[in-house]
Formats: sequence, C-alpha cells, structure tokens
Amino acid sequence: MILVADNLQITDKKIDRAISDMNPEPIQDIVKRCELAGAQAIDINSGPLSRDPEKKMAFLVETVQSVTDLPVFIDTANPKAMEAGLIANRKTAIINGFSLEPAKLEYILPLAKKYNTDIIGYLLYPNSHVPPDSTERLGVAVELFSRFQDAGIDKERLIIDPIVAPVIWENGAFQDMEILTVLRNLPDILDFQVRTIGGLSNLTTGQGPKDKKLILERTYLPMLACAGLSFALLNVLHPETMQTAKAANALTSPKIFAYELF
Amino acid sequence: MILVADNLQITDKKIDRAISDMNPEPIQDIVKRCELAGAQAIDINSGPLSRDPEKKMAFLVETVQSVTDLPVFIDTANPKAMEAGLIANRKTAIINGFSLEPAKLEYILPLAKKYNTDIIGYLLYPNSHVPPDSTERLGVAVELFSRFQDAGIDKERLIIDPIVAPVIWENGAFQDMEILTVLRNLPDILDFQVRTIGGLSNLTTGQGPKDKKLILERTYLPMLACAGLSFALLNVLHPETMQTAKAANALTSPKIFAYELF
Repeated sequence: MILVADNLQITDKKIDRAISDMNPEPIQDIVKRCELAGAQAIDINSGPLSRDPEKKMAFLVETVQSVTDLPVFIDTANPKAMEAGLIANRKTAIINGFSLEPAKLEYILPLAKKYNTDIIGYLLYPNSHVPPDSTERLGVAVELFSRFQDAGIDKERLIIDPIVAPVIWENGAFQDMEILTVLRNLPDILDFQVRTIGGLSNLTTGQGPKDKKLILERTYLPMLACAGLSFALLNVLHPETMQTAKAANALTSPKIFAYELF
Repeated sequence: MILVADNLQITDKKIDRAISDMNPEPIQDIVKRCELAGAQAIDINSGPLSRDPEKKMAFLVETVQSVTDLPVFIDTANPKAMEAGLIANRKTAIINGFSLEPAKLEYILPLAKKYNTDIIGYLLYPNSHVPPDSTERLGVAVELFSRFQDAGIDKERLIIDPIVAPVIWENGAFQDMEILTVLRNLPDILDFQVRTIGGLSNLTTGQGPKDKKLILERTYLPMLACAGLSFALLNVLHPETMQTAKAANALTSPKIFAYELF
C-alpha cells in the first residue's frame, strides 16, 4: 500500500488563502511535513478553482514540485485546471480522476492519453450516484474499463477508486464492507492486477466525535490493506494512523517480517 | 466478533500463586476487571496443572463463576483438569480444545459429547506442527471435522482455531495472511457457517518492542474481523485494542452504523 497524503486541500483555509495570494510558503511547508511523515505521493486537491483555474493549478503543481520529487495526484473536476497541472508537471503526475459521467469521459479521460499519465477511475454511475452494492460496483468497473480502453490507454495506467462510503450514511458500514469485496474481486473481473485507491477520510466525513473517527479510520485501513488496496489516500500527519498503515504493510508484505519494517 | 479475555493465565505470577494457595481473590479481581472492560467470555488458561489438576481446575471454574455469568473457555491440555472443569461448571463452558493429536482425539474430544459443550479444534497436524499454508490448513480442517463428526457431536458445537502465527517466525506474516484466507474459505469447505476463534496475542509472542506489538495487534484484529472471525481471544485490559475490536464490530456488523455502537 502506497501512502498518499490528502493533506493539501483547498478546504484548509490556510491553503485556500495561499492559493489566492499565490504564496508558495504554506503549501511548501505542508508538503515538506507530509514527506517527512512518510507520504509517498501528494494529492493536490484544489477543488473546482472557478477563477483562474489554469494559473492556480500550475502554481500549485510547481510549488509542490519545488520541494519534493514525490508523485503528485492532480485532484480536480475542472478539465482546464487538470490540463494546466499536467502541463506544469515536471516529475510524475496522476490524474484524479474520471468516471462514467459524460463530461469526465469527454474532457478528463483523454488527458491520460495526451499526457501519458496514470489516471484514477471512480466506481460511480454516470449521474455520479454511488452504486448500492459490490455487484453493481463491479458492473460499473467493467463499463469504466471498457470506456478507458476505448480511449486507447494502456491498461497499466488505470487505478480504480471504489469510493469509500461515510459511515454516517444509513448503510455506510455495509457499503464499506462491499468495497472490500470489490477490491478482492476486481483482478478477476477485469482479468489483470488492476491497481486501486481508497480515500480513508471519506469514511468519517461529516458529524462525529474526533477520537472515534480516528479509531474507525485505523480499523478500516488494515481491512483495505488485506483486501489488496494499492494506494491509501490519508492524513499522513496523524502519527497513529501512519503507524497502522506501516504495520499493515509489514503484515501484508510478502517479505520476511521484522519489527524494523514499520 | 465475540471478545474473549485471555487475561486469566497461569503465566501471570499472581494467578499462579493464587491457584497454588487456593486463594480466590486475585482471580475474582481480574475476572471482574475483564467483564467491566467489555469481555464477553473468559478463557481459563491453567497450563497443564501437573499437581492436583482436578482440584485446581474445579477451584478455578468455581472461582470465576462466583463473580461472573460469562461463558468460560477451559483452556488446558490435561484431560483430567478439563473434565474436572466441566463437572464444576454451573453456567456455560467451552472446551479449549482438541486437535488431530491422538491423545486429544482420544481424551479431550469425547468430553464435548459427554458434557454437551462447544469445543475448539486447532488446525494442527497430528504431531502438533503448524501446516505451512492455507491449503494445508483447510485440509486439516476437513480431517478435523471428519473426526469431530465421528465422535457423534452436533456440528454446531465446533469452533475452529486456525492458530495465529507469531510474526517473529521466519514467515509469520505470510502465515497470518494465509489464516485470513482460511477464515474466508472454511464455510465453503465444510459446507456450513462454522464458527472460528483466533488468539491475537499469539501474533506478538516472543521478543519485540511493546509499542509495536500493540500496534500490530490492533492492525491484525480488523483483518481477522473482516475475514469473518467469530471469537477474538485477546487482552481485554488494553483499552485501545478493545476500542479497535469494537470499531471492527461496528464496521462489520450488518446493523445500521452509529458512532454510539463502539
């Protein structure tokens, strides 16, 4: 499981202001702290960037890459911002991401071909609704993979995100167990070892006590790891969550185990 | 996942002395603390009890049941001690346990029929060695179930223990991943929803830093839970491990999720 920092988010007021002011320091600071904490990639979650999307995303990618060589996930629904980020990229960039939504198929998916990058595909219906169970999600995965191949992209470029459900949803915990089934079955259904990603903080989105949210995240993460998740998107600045992630990697790794591994 | 306290062990010097002195108080004290911490059953791990096994096991069972109504797992390799515990039992007792080892098939297994109790079966070879992978363990499970049925016991009485491997073993982490595969496949292989038990502290038996041992246990427990484990044998006096166990139950429960559930 490769650990991807979800810490660089426009919902963080300091980051929002830094983007507005084109001030690199708060962004560089958080990226450096994430790398030090063990992040192996950085998700740049800029939101839609309604004003000056190209300029702002280019600034974000350049700023992040000025202090790290880690891969960046460009996380925006705005195709203009996405393309600007891919143009600004000087290291490794991953598109986050597309779905069966017509606008994403038309404007986001082709960018993976044009810029020769990995791309994340979300298991959502064309209207962006969440499928109700694992069978439906696997059906969406088959359709998504078909549209992905139609775009002429090498299958090794695909990373599937089954979309972790918030536990405050009426049947959220059920959905999160279904996601484990999806992770275990995707390689058989698509007939190759497709990589997968899961956003751990989705689990505890919304109202709820902070301490229990952290325990739930640290409980679900090992379940994702043993179901074969390739990338975990998480708050890398929570030391206990990172310890759990590293312990999960040590346990699920085929290498000989040693306490030194985490 | 039902949480079984592994805290009552003869390896604890206070308990060993209490048994020698036939002094109930230290035993009652630990049992009360376990129940308060959320234990749903108590494992009475007496060791072989080489001197006065019947008297000591009867004393142990009576002492535990004098302060709790929780089920007790009678955990000894000594058939005389086992039978004395079953005779002393006034509530619910579970035999822990038998294996393909000839002495256990001859002297322990029939006690489940005689006293009409649940019994744990270990997935070990007749020489008590640990099978090398999940396929071999499932083969042992089939043989164990066959010997169990030959003894004329209702299949609903069986609880299978696949034997968690210490991570300090050369391939311990690999074995522990194989055990998850065993847990997921047992119901298909035996053609019924057989119950299972796993001893979490086996994972970290032996040398190793205490803090990392606890993190590993809290990481492996959710993996066991989502593989379908029925009973987790664990140190219920570690609050963070118990929080993880409860969070794992909340996530894997088919009930509607609420933060109040753990």
